[in-house]
Parts: sequence; C-alpha cells; structure tokens
Amino acid sequence: MRIRFYNARILTMKENEDIFTGELHTQDNRITYVGKSEDAPEGDFLREIDCKGNVIMPGFKNCHTHSGMTAFRSLADDLNLQDWLNNEIFPREAKMSGEDCNILTKLAILEYLTSGVTSIQDMYLTPETIADACVEMGMRCELVSGLNKFGPTLDVLERRYNELNGKNPLIGFKMGVHAEYTCDKELLQNVSKLIHKYESPLYVHMSETKTEVDECIGRYGMTPVAFFDSLGLFDFGGVIYHGVWTTDEDMEIMLKRNIGVVTNPASNLKLASGIAPIDKYLKKGITVGIGTDGPSSNNALDMFREMYLVTALAKVREMNPLAVPAPEVLKMATVNGAILQEHTDTDTLAKGKLADIIMLDMNMPNMQPILNIPNNIVYSGCKSNVKMTMIDGVILYEDGRFAGVDVEEIYSEASAVMEKLK
Amino acid sequence: MRIRFYNARILTMKENEDIFTGELHTQDNRITYVGKSEDAPEGDFLREIDCKGNVIMPGFKNCHTHSGMTAFRSLADDLNLQDWLNNEIFPREAKMSGEDCNILTKLAILEYLTSGVTSIQDMYLTPETIADACVEMGMRCELVSGLNKFGPTLDVLERRYNELNGKNPLIGFKMGVHAEYTCDKELLQNVSKLIHKYESPLYVHMSETKTEVDECIGRYGMTPVAFFDSLGLFDFGGVIYHGVWTTDEDMEIMLKRNIGVVTNPASNLKLASGIAPIDKYLKKGITVGIGTDGPSSNNALDMFREMYLVTALAKVREMNPLAVPAPEVLKMATVNGAILQEHTDTDTLAKGKLADIIMLDMNMPNMQPILNIPNNIVYSGCKSNVKMTMIDGVILYEDGRFAGVDVEEIYSEASAVMEKLK
Repeated sequence: MRIRFYNARILTMKENEDIFTGELHTQDNRITYVGKSEDAPEGDFLREIDCKGNVIMPGFKNCHTHSGMTAFRSLADDLNLQDWLNNEIFPREAKMSGEDCNILTKLAILEYLTSGVTSIQDMYLTPETIADACVEMGMRCELVSGLNKFGPTLDVLERRYNELNGKNPLIGFKMGVHAEYTCDKELLQNVSKLIHKYESPLYVHMSETKTEVDECIGRYGMTPVAFFDSLGLFDFGGVIYHGVWTTDEDMEIMLKRNIGVVTNPASNLKLASGIAPIDKYLKKGITVGIGTDGPSSNNALDMFREMYLVTALAKVREMNPLAVPAPEVLKMATVNGAILQEHTDTDTLAKGKLADIIMLDMNMPNMQPILNIPNNIVYSGCKSNVKMTMIDGVILYEDGRFAGVDVEEIYSEASAVMEKLK
Repeated sequence: MRIRFYNARILTMKENEDIFTGELHTQDNRITYVGKSEDAPEGDFLREIDCKGNVIMPGFKNCHTHSGMTAFRSLADDLNLQDWLNNEIFPREAKMSGEDCNILTKLAILEYLTSGVTSIQDMYLTPETIADACVEMGMRCELVSGLNKFGPTLDVLERRYNELNGKNPLIGFKMGVHAEYTCDKELLQNVSKLIHKYESPLYVHMSETKTEVDECIGRYGMTPVAFFDSLGLFDFGGVIYHGVWTTDEDMEIMLKRNIGVVTNPASNLKLASGIAPIDKYLKKGITVGIGTDGPSSNNALDMFREMYLVTALAKVREMNPLAVPAPEVLKMATVNGAILQEHTDTDTLAKGKLADIIMLDMNMPNMQPILNIPNNIVYSGCKSNVKMTMIDGVILYEDGRFAGVDVEEIYSEASAVMEKLK
C-alpha cells in the first residue's frame, strides 16, 4: 500500500534542515521518499493527496499520560492534590475494571488523534487492556508500569515486561514505579534488582511538588533524584515525569545517568505544583520531552496547549522573553519525545523511518500570514489545524473524521463507565 | 428573520441559573425566547437548527486586542519588549495605511469567529478603517483610542469619539490613551479635560511590566494607577489593560473609581511581563474581563487558551489549586466582558438581549464525558468545539465555514500587506 503526499511544505525536523516544498511517499508502515517533486520516483499509489501547501511533519510524541482517566474529566477540578487523590480518584479507580480502562483509553485516543499525537507513553492500571485499545485503534504506545506499594507485585511487573514488549509492533513496555512517596525502600531495592537484570531504564513521577521533595529529604536525607540514584535505579538511564523541583545537584546526576525529563506544564499549573526549569534543563544539555499528563489533572489531551505553555512559562519563569524559543519546543514534541520513548525511528521524516506523520492546515486564519512556520505552530497553532494524523502508515484521522471507528459507540460506552464510577 | 435553535443545552450565564435542555429563538438581532421547548411559542422560522445536545451560550467578549497586528504574527517572536517595539513593530507600523489596517483586521475577525468571539475592544492605528472592516464582516467592536505623544491630536480623538460612536449599531468608540510611559503629563491633563467634558470612562494599558511601574514612580512618585487618579482620569471609571503589577493601594483606588481589569495572560507570559493577581482582584470585588492582546504578542486570538490560562496561572501564582474556578472564568469571558465593553445587552441569554450567541460542539472527544459543562469548556475546550458563531442575529461562522466571505481573498490580501511591511 503506497501513499503519496504532494504540494506539501515539509518540516522534516532533521537538524539544520529548512522547510521545503516537495513530496513524501509511504509504503506500508515506512516512509519511502522525502524530497523535491522533480526527484521523486514514480509508482502505483493507492492514494495521491494534494496537500495544497499544508505542512507535513513528524507526529507529536505525548511522553506522559494516564489515558484511562478520561472518566474523571471535569469530575474533580479545583481541589487540593490530597483531596483529589484520596477522596475522588482512588475510590473510583478501585472500581475500574480492565474492560472499563480499555474503553476509557479509546476515548483518549480519539482526542490524541485530533491533536496530532502519534505515540503515547501511558502509565495506568491495566496495561494489557490499554495495549488492546491501542492496537485496535492503531495508536503507538509505550506502556509504563506504575508500580507502588499497593500493587502490582514484582512478578506481575516482570511478566508484563516480557509479555507486552514486542507483543505487537505498536506496543512497548517500560519499567516504571509510580513515585518515591508511594513506594517503600525495600520495594525500590527490589525494583533496582529487576532494572539491573534487564539493564532497563526507569520511568517515574519525580520532583512534581515541593512537598514531595521535602518529605523525601525528611525520610532519607536526599532528594528523590539522589535517593533513586543511590539505589542504582538510574544505572541504565530513564526519565522523570514533571521534574518541577529538581536541584542543581539533581541535574548533575541526571546528566551523568542520562535521565531525561518529561514536562507536563498544564497539569503542573492546574494542580499548583509549580513551573519546571525548562530553560535550565536545555542549557545543561538534559533531554526534555512533553506530556499532557492525564485528563483529570490537565484536563485536555492537547499537545498544542502544552507546546505553548512550555515556551510561555519558561519566559515568565526566567523573566526573559528569549527563553526556550519555538524551534526548541517543536524538537521536544517530536525528536526528543522519540528519544525518551526509545522510538528513534519516528523522530524525523526520512526514508526508512516509520510513517508517523501529521498534516497541519495552514489555510486557517490562525496560521496566516505564513512568515515563520515553526513559530506559527507553537505560538498560534491549535488542534483545529490538524488535518490528518497517520500512524504506522495508516491514516487514522482526516478532516475531522476518524477512519473505521464508531465514535458514538465509544462516547456512549465511556459515558456508561463514567456513570458506574461516578 | 426568525431562527430557532432546539435540542440545545442552554447555558444562559444568568446568576444561579443551571444549564437546561430547551430552545432559543431569535428575531432579527434580538433573542425572543429562551426556555423549555414545551413553553416555546410557535412561528415561522427561516431556519430551525437541531443542536443535538450541543451547548448554546453567550459569545465570548475579547476585551483587549490590536487586531491589525496580524501582519506581524510570527515575525518578531522571542525578543525583548524594547527590541520588539523599536526595531520590529514601530518602523513597520509607520508604513501601514488605513487600507492595510482594514485588511489585517478582517484576517483577525476570521480568527475571532473560529474562537467564539462575538465582540472585541480594539485599540489600533486607524479606527475608521477598523470600523469599516467590522461592519463589513459583522463583528461587534468597541474601538479605543490609543492616544500618545506621537499622535493623534486631541481634536482627532474628540472628532472620532463623536463620529464613530453610534455610526453603526455594531460600533462604539471609547476614550483611551496608550500608556503612562508614552504620554507626557500635559497631554494627560488635556485628556482629563476631555474625559470630564464627556463624563467618559478611560481605557489604558497599565501596570503591564514592573519596569513601567518603577519608572512611573521614579517620574511622579506614584504608581501609574495613583498618578492617573491624581489627574482625574479615572473620575468616570474605566478599564486598565494587563494590571499585572498593581499594588494593594492601586486596588483600593480601582474599587473607589470603578476601574475594571482586562487580563491578557498569554501575552503577559510570552513577553515575560508576569502573572496578574486575578485571585486578589476577585476577592476585592474588582471586575475582571479577558483579552487576547494583539497577534504579535500572543500570537493566537483564542479565547479558550486565555480562559485556561486565567485559571491555571492563578492556581500556580497562589500555589492553590482552588483559586479562580472555571465558572468564574466563564463569567469573565462573557458577563464581565459585556460590562467592561458597556454592552450589557450581550451578557446573558434572555429575551430582549442582543443575539450574540455561540454553539459549542459537545460531540467531540475533548468534551466527553459530559460531567460538568463549564469545567469542560474552560479546562478542556478548544476552538475546534466552536460549531457556530452568531453576532447581532446573523450566523457568521458555522461548521468551519464563514458565511458570505471570500476567505482566500482575505488571506491573499493580508499576505500582500505583510510582504509590503516585512
């Protein structure tokens, strides 16, 4: 199956490559040509799509989410974190079945597609049924275990790691723990053994709130980053989600251990956690990706909002309008996301890369005039501009329609789950 | 001409009125019925629109913008304010004709319509041609003079005040000055005379940056708010745009003089001006509205982004996730906006009010499940949800299409202006 996109403004996201007008071909799930039209090979195409000057670029990588929390959107806003977790979220999650989680994840996937997201890193309750939802819907997904003292067991974690990794080309599984404050030391020591057995990176919520960091220092005399490092949990690299309250010493450890950061600016604002030091991370050379976090703490799953916030909040945090310019943000949302998800064959548009591609509509008022496309995307772009989302060579969303999906059925099933959990 | 909207979830924005399912009728430019279907009068309707459970509510009031700056979108991002103004904006504005401003304003109006904006308060170079653009496109607009020491003269201001106010039912004109730092004291004293002659409120950029406030204190020994008050400029009320760096004493003056605030959170972030004390304003009882500011300092004209930022930034500023809940933000974007624009007949949905109405699509993934509609709109809503925008009884935007407008012609004319000014 071959598809040809022509008359496109192509933003490959390769270092130092300018936007050019040309075409892109895919065959099955790979990109087979990116370049000028005059050099393009001929061929039998299933579809030839006139892009009419619209932008073709790599899809956005949403590096941290809890998709199944769509059930709780707008249910428990404007609350303190502890109220929210203990009184609203945990009791309802206790009632959520694997099948519920599957349906709720499908609802989230619809929204990802409207926002140009072509892969997610998802930490939630039942990885098996999340994987099923992703495979059924065609979404690329790195599952991450959210292990903590309430479950699952290390045996379950190890089994999932072996069973879910490579179960389907769209699905991966990463070793992760929920957070320092939801694990005791012995559990973390045992996770460290597993990390060493598989030489695996570790993924974890870390330094999200000041309270979390202060309490960890109270318990162990160390920041969460230093504490995890002392247990060998970062010996094979990894990623911390949030990273709002890291110290200079933390950043040195992160550099030494190759630990990236996924920033979730909308969630950090809404829960009053703080503003992450993105400008500092970039200056230190730490890899930063972007995540939406879950739809109960954000509440949208909208990479355009996150991209705007990354740069705008960096500017006000540093009181410097030059901080974190738009091209850096686009790199975080694409290339860096691919690195942090260990999917570097989705990072740029190039021959042989996986066909995870989006088309952005420039013929809309918010994208006019076209003076600087990366700046247009980051500073004035929005979901409405997503004209097409292709994952693994398949067009899943185009001109507001979802291919082969009964949207009403998903809405109705998700509402039924929500009624049950309410 | 009568139009009937039925099967609608109706959010009237009246104090203490819950959302209900019913219908709304318009005749010419007024609302003639809002209520349950069983009580609705029959009649000959030009159109009957099945809203399919979507939300009907008052349109958003964008209380501060410089529409014509669309020419400069993405042209001069990531710069210091002085660089931006002196090297990028002012030299280009010097070359902008009234006709240019007319075309650039039309481009902005297209974007307002996609964002559910039904009225704007616009401070820019050539009010006459901005008014023409608004009348031609059907946009409600309160023009505001941006008088400063470079122009125009007080005579021109007074003439515009008399000629443009009431020139067309869609158009009003307010007395305003650009800012304290662009006016000398004598000029402000003369403006004060005019304010007193017409018993008019005053509109002004104020307390946007810390530098501005510090320099005013250096010049006059007073904050900008206190200085303007000392000149009698606030004797008939008014509005300050931005209000990021006001003091407690300023707020007392504002309360006494009935001065509202228009907050422009995206612009304040991007230019690294700061985060306005919205929570404090609300607690003091000061009326707060929302503006996008111009498309060169934002860069979008998107009320959904602004609404999210108002609440999210208040939460992180106060380090309190309970600060400024969603219903307060919706009130700012509608009812308060109408108050600050002195258009209280556009504030809510009720019989006799002007028909400035939007329909929001709830059948999209980001609006599901429907647990709390105001929260859905503020926390996860986006431009894509705007299904229809009606101003003064006329549907100007519906299902992604602009009624009776040659969009390509506007894009092409705006691009030509941009090339000339580049």
